[in-house]
Amino acid sequence: MEISAAELGELLNGEVVGDPSVRVHKLSKIEEGEQGALSFLANPKYEAFAYDTKASILIVNADFEPAKDIASTLIKVDDAYSSFAQIMEQLADRSRKSGVHPTAFVAESANVSEDAYIGPFCYVGEGVEVKAGTQLSAHVTIGDGSLVGKDTLIYAGVHVYHGCQVGDHCIIHAGTVIGSDGFGFVPQPDGRFKKVPQLGTVIIEDHVEIGANVTIDRGTMDATRICEGVKLDNLIQVAHNVEIGAHTVIAAQAGVSGSTKLGKHCMVGGQVGFVGHISIAAGSKINAQSGVAKSIKEPNKSWNGSPAFAFSENLRSKVYFKRLPELVKRIDELEKALAIHQNKK
Amino acid sequence: MEISAAELGELLNGEVVGDPSVRVHKLSKIEEGEQGALSFLANPKYEAFAYDTKASILIVNADFEPAKDIASTLIKVDDAYSSFAQIMEQLADRSRKSGVHPTAFVAESANVSEDAYIGPFCYVGEGVEVKAGTQLSAHVTIGDGSLVGKDTLIYAGVHVYHGCQVGDHCIIHAGTVIGSDGFGFVPQPDGRFKKVPQLGTVIIEDHVEIGANVTIDRGTMDATRICEGVKLDNLIQVAHNVEIGAHTVIAAQAGVSGSTKLGKHCMVGGQVGFVGHISIAAGSKINAQSGVAKSIKEPNKSWNGSPAFAFSENLRSKVYFKRLPELVKRIDELEKALAIHQNKK
Amino acid sequence: MEISAAELGELLNGEVVGDPSVRVHKLSKIEEGEQGALSFLANPKYEAFAYDTKASILIVNADFEPAKDIASTLIKVDDAYSSFAQIMEQLADRSRKSGVHPTAFVAESANVSEDAYIGPFCYVGEGVEVKAGTQLSAHVTIGDGSLVGKDTLIYAGVHVYHGCQVGDHCIIHAGTVIGSDGFGFVPQPDGRFKKVPQLGTVIIEDHVEIGANVTIDRGTMDATRICEGVKLDNLIQVAHNVEIGAHTVIAAQAGVSGSTKLGKHCMVGGQVGFVGHISIAAGSKINAQSGVAKSIKEPNKSWNGSPAFAFSENLRSKVYFKRLPELVKRIDELEKALAIHQNKK
Repeated sequence: MEISAAELGELLNGEVVGDPSVRVHKLSKIEEGEQGALSFLANPKYEAFAYDTKASILIVNADFEPAKDIASTLIKVDDAYSSFAQIMEQLADRSRKSGVHPTAFVAESANVSEDAYIGPFCYVGEGVEVKAGTQLSAHVTIGDGSLVGKDTLIYAGVHVYHGCQVGDHCIIHAGTVIGSDGFGFVPQPDGRFKKVPQLGTVIIEDHVEIGANVTIDRGTMDATRICEGVKLDNLIQVAHNVEIGAHTVIAAQAGVSGSTKLGKHCMVGGQVGFVGHISIAAGSKINAQSGVAKSIKEPNKSWNGSPAFAFSENLRSKVYFKRLPELVKRIDELEKALAIHQNKK
Repeated sequence: MEISAAELGELLNGEVVGDPSVRVHKLSKIEEGEQGALSFLANPKYEAFAYDTKASILIVNADFEPAKDIASTLIKVDDAYSSFAQIMEQLADRSRKSGVHPTAFVAESANVSEDAYIGPFCYVGEGVEVKAGTQLSAHVTIGDGSLVGKDTLIYAGVHVYHGCQVGDHCIIHAGTVIGSDGFGFVPQPDGRFKKVPQLGTVIIEDHVEIGANVTIDRGTMDATRICEGVKLDNLIQVAHNVEIGAHTVIAAQAGVSGSTKLGKHCMVGGQVGFVGHISIAAGSKINAQSGVAKSIKEPNKSWNGSPAFAFSENLRSKVYFKRLPELVKRIDELEKALAIHQNKK
Repeated sequence: MEISAAELGELLNGEVVGDPSVRVHKLSKIEEGEQGALSFLANPKYEAFAYDTKASILIVNADFEPAKDIASTLIKVDDAYSSFAQIMEQLADRSRKSGVHPTAFVAESANVSEDAYIGPFCYVGEGVEVKAGTQLSAHVTIGDGSLVGKDTLIYAGVHVYHGCQVGDHCIIHAGTVIGSDGFGFVPQPDGRFKKVPQLGTVIIEDHVEIGANVTIDRGTMDATRICEGVKLDNLIQVAHNVEIGAHTVIAAQAGVSGSTKLGKHCMVGGQVGFVGHISIAAGSKINAQSGVAKSIKEPNKSWNGSPAFAFSENLRSKVYFKRLPELVKRIDELEKALAIHQNKK
């Protein structure tokens, strides 16, 4: 990318204020702008930075009237954030490839769209289907009989086991494992454990994004299901038979134990754990590091703690937890006042 | 799979009640049975589902007498769960392969059984030994001088460093790393850290199952050891010089710090952490998200909390933690009653 | 390795006491010494083991005078630990290779030093630079336009996305992902989430060691930065726009949320979580499993708990947490003494 203010003004249908010949080659936040950078001002809270920034071009809202001189060339548009995001997306739209890299191996019975790309050292197993526009980066495994929808990006070193499904318009980041055996064992009388065969599958619906080094186990008999629009961060554990409801968002290092069902539109913080076999109501918000040990039936509430309970109550308990030494002193004094023998301390 | 009730009856040595020509092609739980599914009823708690299920065939105990009409064909056997498990295992027993995939690379000095299978893009290093029946899926690395026993399954993208040992009848899921350097550094006077070379190894005994994206560091001088029959879930950290005792089971995202020894037959919940250099008695049960900061000497007890203490005591403390705001009010009132000046709140 | 006491004495410039012809072929700790093992005694606390150890050779400090008979041959040196560490380092210095493995793929426009080694099934993308002495193990991906400095070790299955930088003298363990997209989404009015393109990069400075299966996301517009000398253990999450200050050490399974900056020389325990957009003062010590929810401004202090507060205060609160049931009893008795109606229990 290397573009002038005049060209940007035309692209964004905006008004150029300042030198139209100034050129930019990268994006930056307004407070970190350097020469050659394009930045934007949308939130009035950041206005002060506009007078100091070294960014060469600033995209601003049409109604922005500088209170002082600004060194940057301005592009005035209807919605500065949207216009900046439009530029970001154009830059992010890395060119799609098609075809099979010469080092890749595609099984004879696999059905790969001519419009898909199979990257270096990928292994595409027997009976696999890969639809149009989908891109497999290097070292990806798609196990026998699995299906990958269209326009999906699968990054390096993702391993999809046999018989799983990945939807359309998904993104799966490097190192993620889909379809490993669920953790199911039957204790034997002699203290050993016998494996319960894991014969189910994983179904990932459309528009799902999954971070790096995530693990999603296959169901025991049915499917572990990641519903439409779900976003999972890195290093998340999804156990067998779990269902993550549509448009639920889960932050890094959280874990969901077997057979638990999360509703739609939940927001789960980092390092949260859910025990198995519970149901979480739609719209639940779970604070980071919480441990959810029981089903949540009321939708759209916030939860905190391990075990988790209502967010605001939990905050109050945590405040008093911090003051416990002081509370103990107060009890000591009360006992002294009442001359209760303090042999319990 | 596609089998009739008559064939199943013969296979399981059971009595067919209903239409013997009905055919099934998949397994399901009784409450989720569909046409064409085989299910089972073992636990009387689930009996109600038997009258509603759409499963075409139900395996039931010989003494089961339906209280109402059942649409499914029944197969009466001595032990319904065992018979169903037998079918699961037959389905799970995916055909073993042998030979070396044409895209794999096996070093000249490696000793691979003719009866083992080396999958696509596997790298088998110098002096490696892989015994009969063992299956390496795609993209597996077995580092120089390492040994993999017989009838072991290693899934895609597992990386075993040099000089490690994996036993017989093990299963290691995708993305797991075995033999990475332990985290050992000596602080220098200038605030830098100097690496302590990690010269030990990892020994994984027989009948161990390890989940996906697990990390097991090699010992500093000796071995990190995973004893016989241990089952590890996904995303678990096992630091250098750790020993996990035989038949211990650890749930996902738990971590064991350096040189800690877990006894036999322990059960460790998800996201548990152990500090380094402690010993955990055999049969200890550690609740999810606990932090174990001291050795546990008494065997077969349950622990909870961070830092962990006895399970039932911890539960009580957690109940009162939730009630802390109420306790503070009671102290307030006591002080009021005694006219103690409340300047400490 | 296989070396005699006489040879060791010469190598370490030490005095041999005992049989100079004794030979060792491995290292061990003094308390676990076996025949054929070389061990050392530096800390007087361990002196008792010197009289029992089966290690064939012991390196000891020159001023060590045995109080009893010792079976092992002694090598007396100025600093026993340093001499032993010297032997460890010599053993650890595995021979460096150079060249490109025949199964690897290096893009035509990549610039790989003749003195670097590109291992089996590695993919080195367009415009990549790999400097002298650097070693890529098997199945490594270096994405288009990325740079790897000199004398860096990258173990099997590490995936570096496009446009990232890894410094000189770094070590990156197997399965680690560098440069995956940060977790950034804008909620839409209909409850869906729209991806914020992640256009930044990851910069890893010199002398950094990163454990196995770690994830480091690229910045949104700028760089996620791992500064000089940082040591990261396994399974750590580093979100977009994070900066980890020089010589900071982080234990396994910790996570740092987006845009948080850790100062220099911090020590972070296992399973710790940091919320996003905070700053942590240099030299902060964060205890394992803590949750850091606010910026830490005072340097060189210790913190504990979730949410974290000052370490010693937190310990006191945790002691009283354990005694909560007893505290409640004391309040009960106070109320009884004052005849306050106990309807609140």
